[in-house]
Formats: sequence, C-alpha cells, structure tokens
Amino acid sequence: MAKPGIPKGTRDFSPVEMAKRNYIFNTIREVFHLYGFEQIETPAMENLSTLMGKYGDEGDKLLFKIQNSGDYFSGLTDEELLSRNATKLASKFCEKGLRYDLTVPFARYVVMHRDELSFPFKRYQIQPVWRADRPQKGRYREFYQCDADVVGSNSLLNEVELMQMVDAVFTRLGVRVSIKINNRKILSGIAEIIGEAEKIVDITVAIDKLDKIGLENVNAELASKGISDEAIAKLQPIILLSGTNLEKLNTLKTVLATSEVGMKGVEESEFILSKLSLLNIKSDVELDLTLARGLNYYTGAIFEVKALDVQIGSITGGGRYDNLTGVFGMAGVSGVGISFGADRIFDVLNQLDLYPKEAVNGTQLMFVNFGEKEAEYCLPLLTKVREANIRAEIYPDAAKMKKQMGYANDKKVLFVAIVGENEMNEGKVMLKNMETGEQQLVDIVQLITAVTK
Amino acid sequence: MAKPGIPKGTRDFSPVEMAKRNYIFNTIREVFHLYGFEQIETPAMENLSTLMGKYGDEGDKLLFKIQNSGDYFSGLTDEELLSRNATKLASKFCEKGLRYDLTVPFARYVVMHRDELSFPFKRYQIQPVWRADRPQKGRYREFYQCDADVVGSNSLLNEVELMQMVDAVFTRLGVRVSIKINNRKILSGIAEIIGEAEKIVDITVAIDKLDKIGLENVNAELASKGISDEAIAKLQPIILLSGTNLEKLNTLKTVLATSEVGMKGVEESEFILSKLSLLNIKSDVELDLTLARGLNYYTGAIFEVKALDVQIGSITGGGRYDNLTGVFGMAGVSGVGISFGADRIFDVLNQLDLYPKEAVNGTQLMFVNFGEKEAEYCLPLLTKVREANIRAEIYPDAAKMKKQMGYANDKKVLFVAIVGENEMNEGKVMLKNMETGEQQLVDIVQLITAVTK
Repeated sequence: MAKPGIPKGTRDFSPVEMAKRNYIFNTIREVFHLYGFEQIETPAMENLSTLMGKYGDEGDKLLFKIQNSGDYFSGLTDEELLSRNATKLASKFCEKGLRYDLTVPFARYVVMHRDELSFPFKRYQIQPVWRADRPQKGRYREFYQCDADVVGSNSLLNEVELMQMVDAVFTRLGVRVSIKINNRKILSGIAEIIGEAEKIVDITVAIDKLDKIGLENVNAELASKGISDEAIAKLQPIILLSGTNLEKLNTLKTVLATSEVGMKGVEESEFILSKLSLLNIKSDVELDLTLARGLNYYTGAIFEVKALDVQIGSITGGGRYDNLTGVFGMAGVSGVGISFGADRIFDVLNQLDLYPKEAVNGTQLMFVNFGEKEAEYCLPLLTKVREANIRAEIYPDAAKMKKQMGYANDKKVLFVAIVGENEMNEGKVMLKNMETGEQQLVDIVQLITAVTK
Repeated sequence: MAKPGIPKGTRDFSPVEMAKRNYIFNTIREVFHLYGFEQIETPAMENLSTLMGKYGDEGDKLLFKIQNSGDYFSGLTDEELLSRNATKLASKFCEKGLRYDLTVPFARYVVMHRDELSFPFKRYQIQPVWRADRPQKGRYREFYQCDADVVGSNSLLNEVELMQMVDAVFTRLGVRVSIKINNRKILSGIAEIIGEAEKIVDITVAIDKLDKIGLENVNAELASKGISDEAIAKLQPIILLSGTNLEKLNTLKTVLATSEVGMKGVEESEFILSKLSLLNIKSDVELDLTLARGLNYYTGAIFEVKALDVQIGSITGGGRYDNLTGVFGMAGVSGVGISFGADRIFDVLNQLDLYPKEAVNGTQLMFVNFGEKEAEYCLPLLTKVREANIRAEIYPDAAKMKKQMGYANDKKVLFVAIVGENEMNEGKVMLKNMETGEQQLVDIVQLITAVTK
C-alpha cells in the first residue's frame, strides 16, 4: 500500500503548531474586537464568475477550479472536446473555484448584503485562501489571510485606527516593528510634476537603492530608464528626502506645490501622522516614498510593516482603495484595510521564540492509571479539577509506569498525580512536579492550588 | 451587470451568526482542552487517492474534485475524450478533492505522522467539510464538523470521558439532552442468538416502532422482513426491554448468555454506565438498543445525543471503531470519537434563544464624531478604554447625529459617548446608555467603570 501523502504546497498543522497559530490569531482577533471590527465568513467555493478577471490573467491561471458534479460534458461538441483547449474547456467543466483572497469575496458579500449592512461596515475575516502557485519555501497553496477593512467611510480616522491596531497587535506579540506609510497620491504627484507618470515604479525602485548605490548611480539608473535630465533634476529633493516625517512632509510641500493630487497626498499623510503622534504608539512610523505596493489597486494611503529583529519581507500591509465593489455593480464605496501575514508572523515569532508558555501548553495535570479501582478513585477528582478550570486527563490504560510517564513528558504535562493503595487509603494523591521532580502528598484542595498557582 | 451570488448549498455568515457560532465552537473547544485533547488542522484539499473508496460509491460521487492545473488533457486519447465518461475522465482531469469529513484526513494524518505522535493520541479538529449533496433545508454543501477522537487506546475510560464531555458541553450551552448509548457487540449478539445476522437493521428499525405501533405490529413487521417465528419469539424480551439501564442489562445478560460477543457488549456497556453513575453528570444516559448508527463502521460502543426541548435529529454522535488507519497500511489502531453537529446545535440554541448576551455583543462603546477637533479629543480616550479591555470605536465621519446614532443602534452598542465643546472644556464626556436613555457627565475613570460594570 502506498504511503499516504498530501497535495504539494499544503500542510498539516500538529498540536504545537496549532497552539502557536491560535495564539497569533487570537491576539489579532482580540485587537480587531477592541476596535469594533466584526467577523464574517464566506464559503471556500465561489462562483468562477465572481473570481475570474479580478486578479489579472496570471491570477485567473492560479485559481483552483472545481469540476462540476454530474455530466460535465453535456452541451460540448466533439470539436470543442478535441480542441483540447484546457483554459476554454475548464470554463465549461467548472463553475466554481476556491477563493484566491479575502478581498473579492468580501466585495461580493458587501454587494449581496448591502441592505442588511450598516455603513461604515467594519469587518474582519480570518480564513484560508488557495492559489495554484508553484510551491516554494514560505509559499504555500493553502494559507490563511487575516484581513480587517472598513468600507463606506472616507474618513482618515480609519487609517489612523488601523495603524494603532497594527501597533497594538505587534506590541502584544512582543515583536518590534517599523510601520512604513506612503500615499498613492504623493506618487501620482511626483509623476505629475516630472511629467513621467508611467515611470513611477522605476522611480521608486531607483530611490530605494540610494543607501546601497549612492546618488550618482541612482541618477544613472533613472536616466537609463529613459527619464529626462530635467525630470531627474526635479527629483533630487525627493531622492534625498530625509529627516523626520515632518521634515519630509515640508520638503514634499515645496516640491509638489504645483500638483493638486500630490498636495492632497501630503495633506492626508500629515493628518495620519499628526493624529498618530497624539497616541504614543510604540512602533516607529516612517513616511517612506519607496513604498509602492499594489499601485493599480490602492488610491490613497498605503502601509507596510517590517519586523526589526528578523530578516523577512513585510509581515502586514494594506491601504485605501476606492471602488471596491464597483466591479459588482455597486459604485462609490471606498474602503481601507490591512492584512496580517499569519505565516510570516508565525516565522518571526518562532525565530524570536516569543510564545508565552501558557499559550502553547496543553494538559496541565495527568493522573497515572494503576488499574480499574484506582481509576475509579481518580475520575471524581478529575471532575473536580476540571471544574476548577484545570486541563487534566487520566492515562486511559493501566500501562507500565514508564510508558505513562513518557506520554506525560511528550505532552509536556507539568504535574502528574500518582494514586496507589496508600494514597487511596489516606484520601489523597501524590503530586509530582515534572520539572523539579518534587513530590508531595496533597488533598484535592491543595492539588488545585498547586496546579493553578 | 449580473447580481453576484454564491454556489448553492453554501452560506455567508454575517457578524451576528459568526458571534453565535463562535460561542458554540469556543464552548466545545474549552471542554476539549479541559479533557486533554489537542487541536490539529489538515488541508482542505486531499489527494483523491486518499479520499476515494472510503465512503462507498455514493460518497465517491459526492466528492468535490479539483481540476488539475495546466494541461489536464495530456496523455488522453481522442477515443477516451469522446467516450464522455464523466466518472472515468474526472479521475484523469483531477488528482485532488475537498475533504468529505474529518475522519479520513485524520486517519491519513495519524499514519503520516505516526513517528512524531505519542499514543494514545487525543486530537480534536474543527474545520469545514464539503459534499456535493443535493442541498435542502438544514443540509449544506459546506459545513463544519467538530470531532474529538482518542486513537491507540482500547480503554473504556475513553468512552466514559467522551460521555462526560458531551454532558459538559451541553450543560455549558444550557441545552437539556439525553445521551443514548448502545454497543455494536450487543447488536451482533442479538443477531447471533436469533440466527439472522444480516437482518440486524430491520430488527432495530422494527423495535424502534414499539411505542408507536404496538407489539403485535412490530412482530408482524419482523415476520414480513422474513424473520422466522422462532427468532421473533427469542426477540420478545429485547423488544419489550424496559426499566432502568441496570434492569435492561440484566435482561440482556439472560437473553445473550450464549453469545460471547453479545456478553462482551453487555459488559462494556455496564462498565461505561457504572463509571458514569459515579460522576453525577447532568444529562440522562439511556441504553437504547434501537440505536444502530454506522453499523459498518463502529465496532464497540455507539452513542447519540438528542435535544430534549427541540424537535431535531441527533445533535452529536460517535462510537468506537477498530482499525481506523488499516486502510492506509497501519493496522491495530483502535479509536473512539465523537462529532458535534455544529449546524444543528446552532439551530437548537437559536430556537431556545440560549445565547448569553455577552457572547453575541460586539462594540460596547461608541464615540460620536462632531468633527476633527472633537475627534482629536476622543482618540486618546479611546486608547484608554481599550486598554481597559472595552470594545470601542469612534464613528469615523462627522456625519449627522441621527446617522451616527442609527449606526450605534444597528450595531447594538450599549453606550454612546458624546463629546462637544462643553464636555471638552470640562475634560469629561457625556455618556448615554442606549437602553435606558439615561445620560451622565463622566470622567474617564467613571466612563470605564460605567461601561465595564
């Protein structure tokens, strides 16, 4: 018989991994709740008509498609079949696909439920998504996304609160982070004043290299991308932008003075940064013009979070987008959101070993099983300790002591209760601390105190 | 543009439904933890080779299959294609499918991870499963299962503890239930002594009708199923089995005296019931010979839970099975488990309106937004109340008061904080209780006390 396996790019999560992941999800969830976000869930399967065309051609190819039940050949001519056109026939064979992200299903949800929803709608969603991507280190075909979005409000207070939430989550997790913010409108303004709108990505890439390659080489790279000398000259204050966020904003106000959209971006960033400065958040917030994520998607503020103590890509990101639901026929709904990268945060916490002991501990107390009579004595005690909220179990079989203790060790159980003839006669249990080796004869009240303290 | 929809048989869960479902899942999860069960998760997609042939022909047809990426036509002849054999070609087009239950993936998990696991392995799993069944009221194509199993232990203490867990879950949820238990071996014993092994299902179905149709009609039905007069005569004490569990067991001991397997089933049931009687559980536990779920699957104890105050099928069930992992080449692993039917439990709690208020409440406190200056005053207060673990938000836009209050109402926010010129001057906030309409001018300390009390 073949050894069973799982599809490539997917994972089993064993108890310790689950406990760690739950610690992360619960921390994020608590913060979402404290900020008034409510959870929704959408089905794993969406109609392909909902998913197709939303992620570009490349995205369409990465959708997992689900074969129709029953006779999926009906209505197909011999010619169509023999064409062997995999893409075209897939659309005949399949009507449903697995969700690719949480954003499109959310947009679909908002449109379908618009009449029940009270706007602004603050929702969060923690669910897996699936992508038929080539699996590689740190990239999976099934992974969780953790998204919080506010839709139906243009207020920049939403951006401020999302940044506070990022700070709160990573403060609780004990991860030192830097929050980078930028604004799509500032980038548009830069493109506008130098008259090279379509070169904005080349420009941000080049600016990003300043530290590494120096000003001269940055300018050479810009020239090699076909940017005019005049435009490069105009870009100098932006390439050399430095100092505090306030200083940067002041420079930008001079450079972008003639661009309406650019000045709007500066104003928005100023609002967000000034409000955040009132709230003494722990993380560093930095205006970073090289941040250019999802340019085709975001329309206002954009942000990204970097861990300071681990070399890894951004662990959280987001921004403001207009017209989330336009593609489903509901116009004029602006939104802003963040997405926590659960898998990367998991890697960061593992590397820094930041899990609190109580978050990953399972069973606290195990009763050794010496036989039916002894087990009968232990069962009511188990009921009592569980009523005291202690996670407890009895080894189910009267196996050899060594085996039972090995099980307790494997499960990292801190306390073991040993009950034999003597203990039963005295109405007590022998409690062993597995870390110190210490043993003491205790009654049920002392037992509960010892384990919960 | 077409109005977007979701695949039939699937559901969106909105915030209130999610809060209720989470309350149920969290209650179950807490009990699982108290009994030493640990969580695992497996991928939504499994290889079809893992899933096929495990649920019978009918089950194979109900698997959702995922189309291979890329050129899924490769290696197919024209003849094969034109055969239009949907079932056969599905196996060429698809290598993966969505999991149909949590049991087969769990068995696959145990076999794959056998070297890392410490047995007995007590795991729980709360994840969705998918079935291409015809959707109808209460039957969905995507639904959650909540399973707890112990594998690698033959001890009946596991059965005892699973019954305790059932009792603990429904006691916490406030649902009055009756736990029915039976044993596959008793049923085998009955079949053995009457010499009609293959008629066991007919027999249990007929016995089940005693209350409704009377003894005479039950006997007539048995005869119509081809059961001999002699066998029917032998069945009389079993059909008329009544009284306490002890009385039933005593009758069975007489009737099944000559059947080794039957007596083993009686002995097992006696063990489970006698141990449970020491533990004063709240639910009624009844030995019920008409219980015959999953006959081909279970090999020992079987149990089912009925809600006493709502007309609905069984809301939890389970039993002992031998050889869970045999199909994947790992023999001799016995297991016993229960599965909580989340969707039905949800229906029961809805009908009885058993959700505690704090389980479904979201935001506790909303700050009205009168404009930028006022919002700036409120932001640090929001930080403080959240530090006090209060779920709070500020309406993001300076919208009309009526709109803001409508939002608070829709979200069932209990307290609204109103901050205008006067309140700012006094360093206070006007706190309104949305239920009583009462208003009071409070400082931040009083605010926190009022909302948390």
